[in-house]
Amino acid sequence: MLLVLVINGFNFQREDLSIVIKVGIVGFGNVGRGVEQAIAQQPDMELVAIFTRRSPEDVKPYGDVKVDLFSNLHSYVGEIDVLLLCNGSANDLPIQGPEIAKMFCTVDSYDNHGKIFDYFTAMNEVATANGKICIIGTGWDPGLFSINRALFEACLPKGTSTYFYGPGVSQGHSQALRDINGIKNAVQYTMPVTGNLRRIQEGEILELTPRQKYTRDCYVVLEEGANGDEIEALIKKMPNYFEPYDTTVTFISEEELVANHFASPHGGFVIRNGTTGVDSHPQKMEFSLKLKSNPEFTAAVIVAYARAAARMHAGGEVGARTVLDVTATQLSPKTHEELIKELL
Amino acid sequence: MLLVLVINGFNFQREDLSIVIKVGIVGFGNVGRGVEQAIAQQPDMELVAIFTRRSPEDVKPYGDVKVDLFSNLHSYVGEIDVLLLCNGSANDLPIQGPEIAKMFCTVDSYDNHGKIFDYFTAMNEVATANGKICIIGTGWDPGLFSINRALFEACLPKGTSTYFYGPGVSQGHSQALRDINGIKNAVQYTMPVTGNLRRIQEGEILELTPRQKYTRDCYVVLEEGANGDEIEALIKKMPNYFEPYDTTVTFISEEELVANHFASPHGGFVIRNGTTGVDSHPQKMEFSLKLKSNPEFTAAVIVAYARAAARMHAGGEVGARTVLDVTATQLSPKTHEELIKELL
Repeated sequence: MLLVLVINGFNFQREDLSIVIKVGIVGFGNVGRGVEQAIAQQPDMELVAIFTRRSPEDVKPYGDVKVDLFSNLHSYVGEIDVLLLCNGSANDLPIQGPEIAKMFCTVDSYDNHGKIFDYFTAMNEVATANGKICIIGTGWDPGLFSINRALFEACLPKGTSTYFYGPGVSQGHSQALRDINGIKNAVQYTMPVTGNLRRIQEGEILELTPRQKYTRDCYVVLEEGANGDEIEALIKKMPNYFEPYDTTVTFISEEELVANHFASPHGGFVIRNGTTGVDSHPQKMEFSLKLKSNPEFTAAVIVAYARAAARMHAGGEVGARTVLDVTATQLSPKTHEELIKELL
Repeated sequence: MLLVLVINGFNFQREDLSIVIKVGIVGFGNVGRGVEQAIAQQPDMELVAIFTRRSPEDVKPYGDVKVDLFSNLHSYVGEIDVLLLCNGSANDLPIQGPEIAKMFCTVDSYDNHGKIFDYFTAMNEVATANGKICIIGTGWDPGLFSINRALFEACLPKGTSTYFYGPGVSQGHSQALRDINGIKNAVQYTMPVTGNLRRIQEGEILELTPRQKYTRDCYVVLEEGANGDEIEALIKKMPNYFEPYDTTVTFISEEELVANHFASPHGGFVIRNGTTGVDSHPQKMEFSLKLKSNPEFTAAVIVAYARAAARMHAGGEVGARTVLDVTATQLSPKTHEELIKELL
């Protein structure tokens, strides 16, 4: 049972040390592993169990944590305040999300922009009917980038927002390389065209073509006997993925790929160039991330939103929420007084 | 009367075109002028009147707006949804704020960090007793910077936050120059030491002295017959203000000062370098502003928070709030569905 004192819907008395948010993890891939590690950094959270569809003995957490079968989830009702859903957006979350929301408050990082309103609607219906809070689409995009998109527009209605992604590994483009006959393994980095990024950061409004926005760097391990020249030409002509960009292909050994290209760095920029007043004074707002580990950062954001979910639920709220519906106060372990005195 | 449909405390039906937020401005200095211009950029706001302690005929708004005496404020109860308080934090707001909060919902940009909790407490008491919502300390610092300080800490508990201000005009340092005998007028720019800012942006954790953080650029107009060399030496030795920094002094004419140094540019950076996971992967979050007009941008933020104040009040909330207690959804003119589909 979560004990939280709510005043005016936002004030939390952290002095009561019985306030520990009990969380569980569903799915233990890269993001799930990041979530386990992120929970350990938070002062007020306890990891109750990790749930898996694999054999529990095949799952190796970093700490001394119980691993149980996904099918046993129902027996943890009342023991877990918030479940952190770390399975994929393509196939898992659309089915698992609404099923789990019948029993638990949840946080996920659903990231299929095109279907996210449908997912929100499905989660909202189940969460509302069952008295739960479910925060969907956390992480950084959707997630922190979305907050900044909305905040920037609200403050500077007259203006242009520009996004750059990277430098970072694109899973989709890496997979497109690996799908080519003769390629054994590959990693693709999306690199912003620095000069154009800099011009927008300096306040220029530019309409950029894909080629003016990104270059694509491919690190490729060939199969025995594959023809490098032919494969390089094939990559550079691939429509949508590589043809619209300046693409470089570097052939490396499997050992080098594993040693130097498995870290999953990423990042990006949200920039708004707007103007205010009768003299159209230029004003720029910018938010950026530079991440050494994309899944670990996504996990860190999910975990911060677990606190908000627990508090909203303790305050009597129900339904689905997005990062746009959560305040900084709800995310922070500090009391409202500490926040005002130390961070305002 | 503000007509807003509230569902789950956050969903607003903008399709109802009768939703116009009626606002008033108290105080018509640089920020008040910025507020008038910012309201004109918003799709759902109407400026009812500007209130002044001067003679109303001495106040010249940009548009065709009613100007009335501050002492007539009480007769606008029921006609104005939110009053935007644009007078100073030092002497005006601590007295005016609680007085006005008896009658109106308010938004201000109170910015005295050292006394802000006292101000919050005073405003919260009056607003709660009188059924009003008062959002204090909007603008950018406190304000947007505060949101990012809290958000960054919540996501990356293990890390170091660094702030840089500028490049921009410091009113305090400019006044310190103008207080020197022999100086007729002056403007001082606070400039981040670019190399050290860049190192922190690249992920280094640095403990910086004042000299390593900022340089100070002074543009000075001398009185007739004043000795430039003596004044330059005096400036560079001023304790706290200039002695701890590398300071340059440039003597210019009054005409040049007015032509090139009256725009009040400013800006700054909030950077958090944190680590996640057992391998301590470095992760950087950054928020920055580059403003041509500091007062106009502060005004634009105040105006965005007027929407949140009107919505919170329409939803039945009362009391004082800070930017940390407001969601992106409450700030945006878009409906919740539009936000999810377009910005999430």
